[in-house]
Amino acid sequence: MTLGIALLGAGRIGQVHADAVAACTNATLISVTDIMAPAAMALAERHDCQVRALDDIAGASNVDAVIIATPTPTHADLIERFARVGKAVFCEKPIDLNLDRVRACLSVVADTQTTLMVGFNRRFDPHIGAVRAAIEAGEVGTVEMVQITSRDPGAPPPDYIRSSGGIFRDMTIHDFDLARFMLGEEIETVCATASVLTDPAIADLDDFDSVSVILTTKTGRHCTISNSRRATYGYDQRVEVHGSKGMVSVKNQRPLDIEIATASGYVRPPLHDFFMTRYTQAYEAEIAAFVKCVQTGSRPSPDGNDGLMALALAEAALQSVTGGRQIPVSQILEPRP
Amino acid sequence: MTLGIALLGAGRIGQVHADAVAACTNATLISVTDIMAPAAMALAERHDCQVRALDDIAGASNVDAVIIATPTPTHADLIERFARVGKAVFCEKPIDLNLDRVRACLSVVADTQTTLMVGFNRRFDPHIGAVRAAIEAGEVGTVEMVQITSRDPGAPPPDYIRSSGGIFRDMTIHDFDLARFMLGEEIETVCATASVLTDPAIADLDDFDSVSVILTTKTGRHCTISNSRRATYGYDQRVEVHGSKGMVSVKNQRPLDIEIATASGYVRPPLHDFFMTRYTQAYEAEIAAFVKCVQTGSRPSPDGNDGLMALALAEAALQSVTGGRQIPVSQILEPRP
Amino acid sequence: MTLGIALLGAGRIGQVHADAVAACTNATLISVTDIMAPAAMALAERHDCQVRALDDIAGASNVDAVIIATPTPTHADLIERFARVGKAVFCEKPIDLNLDRVRACLSVVADTQTTLMVGFNRRFDPHIGAVRAAIEAGEVGTVEMVQITSRDPGAPPPDYIRSSGGIFRDMTIHDFDLARFMLGEEIETVCATASVLTDPAIADLDDFDSVSVILTTKTGRHCTISNSRRATYGYDQRVEVHGSKGMVSVKNQRPLDIEIATASGYVRPPLHDFFMTRYTQAYEAEIAAFVKCVQTGSRPSPDGNDGLMALALAEAALQSVTGGRQIPVSQILEPRP
Amino acid sequence: MTLGIALLGAGRIGQVHADAVAACTNATLISVTDIMAPAAMALAERHDCQVRALDDIAGASNVDAVIIATPTPTHADLIERFARVGKAVFCEKPIDLNLDRVRACLSVVADTQTTLMVGFNRRFDPHIGAVRAAIEAGEVGTVEMVQITSRDPGAPPPDYIRSSGGIFRDMTIHDFDLARFMLGEEIETVCATASVLTDPAIADLDDFDSVSVILTTKTGRHCTISNSRRATYGYDQRVEVHGSKGMVSVKNQRPLDIEIATASGYVRPPLHDFFMTRYTQAYEAEIAAFVKCVQTGSRPSPDGNDGLMALALAEAALQSVTGGRQIPVSQILEPRP
Repeated sequence: MTLGIALLGAGRIGQVHADAVAACTNATLISVTDIMAPAAMALAERHDCQVRALDDIAGASNVDAVIIATPTPTHADLIERFARVGKAVFCEKPIDLNLDRVRACLSVVADTQTTLMVGFNRRFDPHIGAVRAAIEAGEVGTVEMVQITSRDPGAPPPDYIRSSGGIFRDMTIHDFDLARFMLGEEIETVCATASVLTDPAIADLDDFDSVSVILTTKTGRHCTISNSRRATYGYDQRVEVHGSKGMVSVKNQRPLDIEIATASGYVRPPLHDFFMTRYTQAYEAEIAAFVKCVQTGSRPSPDGNDGLMALALAEAALQSVTGGRQIPVSQILEPRP
Repeated sequence: MTLGIALLGAGRIGQVHADAVAACTNATLISVTDIMAPAAMALAERHDCQVRALDDIAGASNVDAVIIATPTPTHADLIERFARVGKAVFCEKPIDLNLDRVRACLSVVADTQTTLMVGFNRRFDPHIGAVRAAIEAGEVGTVEMVQITSRDPGAPPPDYIRSSGGIFRDMTIHDFDLARFMLGEEIETVCATASVLTDPAIADLDDFDSVSVILTTKTGRHCTISNSRRATYGYDQRVEVHGSKGMVSVKNQRPLDIEIATASGYVRPPLHDFFMTRYTQAYEAEIAAFVKCVQTGSRPSPDGNDGLMALALAEAALQSVTGGRQIPVSQILEPRP
Repeated sequence: MTLGIALLGAGRIGQVHADAVAACTNATLISVTDIMAPAAMALAERHDCQVRALDDIAGASNVDAVIIATPTPTHADLIERFARVGKAVFCEKPIDLNLDRVRACLSVVADTQTTLMVGFNRRFDPHIGAVRAAIEAGEVGTVEMVQITSRDPGAPPPDYIRSSGGIFRDMTIHDFDLARFMLGEEIETVCATASVLTDPAIADLDDFDSVSVILTTKTGRHCTISNSRRATYGYDQRVEVHGSKGMVSVKNQRPLDIEIATASGYVRPPLHDFFMTRYTQAYEAEIAAFVKCVQTGSRPSPDGNDGLMALALAEAALQSVTGGRQIPVSQILEPRP
Repeated sequence: MTLGIALLGAGRIGQVHADAVAACTNATLISVTDIMAPAAMALAERHDCQVRALDDIAGASNVDAVIIATPTPTHADLIERFARVGKAVFCEKPIDLNLDRVRACLSVVADTQTTLMVGFNRRFDPHIGAVRAAIEAGEVGTVEMVQITSRDPGAPPPDYIRSSGGIFRDMTIHDFDLARFMLGEEIETVCATASVLTDPAIADLDDFDSVSVILTTKTGRHCTISNSRRATYGYDQRVEVHGSKGMVSVKNQRPLDIEIATASGYVRPPLHDFFMTRYTQAYEAEIAAFVKCVQTGSRPSPDGNDGLMALALAEAALQSVTGGRQIPVSQILEPRP
């Protein structure tokens, strides 16, 4: 059975998901929706499918699932809307910038028993997946310390930063999810430091560009995260997991894997300079996993709760920076009355 | 303008080319032909195109080009047949195992002014292409010594070896082409050694599995080639070019790029175990280059002469092994009366 | 002029320093002192020098300098004693476990204008030194984020831990010094997390074995430190400095630099399993630098203040773990009345 | 018992051996001999030993062994002279440039039952030794193909080349010995190509600077050697052994093991630029092995026959270049009457 999918949002990430659907043998792109008509039309033409208004999707019998790739403020409403009409939902992170709104949305998802997968693409990268598989196979023993280094080639434009919820909710959120994916235990405390080092304009937007975080779990496992909005040498994406028997790490990927040796030394080209070229395989595997979940009725992973938890960690990190202290995650999840 | 392509041969490499055509935005697969009807049908269904008999292609106005992926003995006849009716031709290497037959075929190609590209896929690998680009950019100065290490994960089945023309014409031929691609000068002499080390059954087939070759050019540049039919750690594909200013090399690729460190040491997974996963990008780029050549009327590379030269080097290598001496390539190309 | 040196302490690290003096062309080992007579005699014999009682060193005219490699509780007294008689002093870290005692000792050093170098050997490792040189040459631009990963092959014996002052004062203290060496600015805050993951016996000693630390400077630079008392794959010693123009990192060293590729993958041997084999060159360079300082009258680096600062950071880290909050270093250095 | 050693030759390699004797706990340098008196005196002073004339060594009861580090034309005479008076001999390669002279010399060595070790230092490099140990431990199965890449940072001065016997006897000779060390079978045929690519002045000296060689053994194992007199990126020393179960290789060594990543890519510093810094450990281990042989009466390795065989391979390579054909080693060793 081929899954019929409606894509909401024809922007950069929407295009990535459209390609991923096209690469998926048991799914087909039925329609593209975007308030920018030319964008929707161009993408629909490329994938030989329809342009549809939002109102024409809910009732469409050939649409089994929607992919939400619209701006963040619309996510929760769209999830609820399509959950209520029985469509499976894949939604880009975050569900919402507000934790209460996320909780309310997840409650609708729970009531409707909708399949909801949240877009943490890195879990589907084959190399990162192999790290997790090595952990599960016991190759490094009991996990003790995780180190995540994640640096973007450059900061997004000011308009994006302004509405992104800040670096913790926009960028570190991926690392929070990855930390949970690797630690094998729920995170209990968050301690974060943040500063502006790459561009003073980011301070004017009340955001940070350089972030260090320590997470701890119940049994005392640690995870450190090191983020920067700018790395001259490309998109730096490393994860390293140290355990009782050893360490497993994922290597950075480069588009051209050559080396030139001269009197100046041995030079390899820079890394990928864009998340879309670095994670091409991950985006395809992510949609394939979503399609499989819907078709087999299995539990999606990452699900709505994973989206909630990563956002809660971002919230805790922000409070930690402000208060100069370690924040218990429970304080975020179960606020005192 | 979209190029209409007929695929001849629905076997393993035919399927690779069909995928490559599908990935090419300005080409479309019109039909699949194979004497094994079920294979043709399965592939046609996958790519939503027709199954056609050979006789129905030559006159088809929507077919601009053919991809020849049939067994070697049919190559030269098919090239001539489609050259004569004005179709552009992409043909898998080798054109023929017999040099005179190749020459006769290329003469038809020349007379008909057909576009003929020969399938040396490695030239289109992005990493190998980056090595060549570095040479052309002068980053290693004047080329002096090229080293090619090429080992297959395992030998092909006996039936394949029996009709392949032997290791030099079947496997080393890729390295001969690569040597020419990198040396920047035509090869003048060939000195080769060959033995059977991995499996005595290969000796029964009058073939070798382990080969070392030295090539030289007019100005004294060298290239060494080291081949084995079997490498336990995967598909070993290395090229290294040493020049007056430095050295450039291409790294081996692995599907999972992680590292596990334990008391036993640091372990990375094996390499790709198959040429199709190693050279996926190369196969796509190869067909894209062919399509571009046909559409722009530009000169194909590698062309028929490249196919001829690689085969001549294989012939010279075989004579060198037999005679225990260095063979001038001119002796192969212009045999004494 | 050859510098005459008296070595105090003939234990493991004393032997390392004796070798370093022997390798130094313009210094000579005059005597060895140890309360364990056999140890002193063995070392003196190996280096063809005298065994002397402590009281016979202060007045010896052929002794220009002392190397203090005795147990920590004796360090401050010995520094003061030899400072007062005009001997130059090289002292193993830490000067003392108590900050006030360190301050008092440094006051004597200042009054006597003695040359005092403190033993942070890593600054003298050629690879780590090359990282610092690259920073000073501007190759990575303005320093922004430093990451230090430091893991010992295994925990020291309980008796050692009991008197070591704990992991921060014994092990992380090297990383605190390295952080200061790389950050290029004084550290302002310390945030640390610590747990016992490798061996419950360490908890019984009121110590930790797994530590994560974030340091910040005045302009917002960060440094993260990740420590474990146990790494199965050897002595893991990495430093990585990210700046506005790029990143510089030091690679781990292994005694046997080979690689074996089989069907199981590509394997390199484990790292050095001991600080003395990893830092052999550093220990020699350290003593050579000390000798040069004394002979040229130049300012030693690291000096007593560097010893004080690293200890203060250890103190702050401990308070941070206890209080669950970020500790300003000023609070340690200038305690409120 | 401490072995008393007389060093003959106080030049560059003589100094290396003097240092190696100094580092050896059970040997002592008794004297230095050199026709250049100032060189002998300087080295003797540095090692606190005597300067002696050649005639004063043979009868010296405190001299157990001699190290011959004089110019090549004196080697065979000196070996014979000291063999006849019962001194053990370590001699730098080659024993002589003339095979018959070598044979005559080895006959004296055999008659006198002298311990003779020949200086092929690479066998004692810990990394290369680990490759051999891996082979012996069966980690790569049966050896099939060996690849040796050996490039010097730059050519020696014309005067050196003039008397060196040419690149095969001077430089490739080390690789011939290494090939024998790794192949595990005696070499049967040699096929070589040689040209002048780096400096026309080398052609004026009737020598080559760029060499490729294929060696084969009785069972068909191959070894390829690639040599250049000049590599801009340092002293390139690689060995790779492919066998039935896998491959083992030794990595190049660099004095500073850091990496700098910028917008231009990831850069590591060049390799060692001198054989003495690359092989410091090897030279020490070599003399230690010689001392041990003499003291235990065990068979030296490499011995005189190893010196003979490497020279015979050089001779065969030269004939192969001249004749354009593969040369059986037996033809060199047992010339037809």
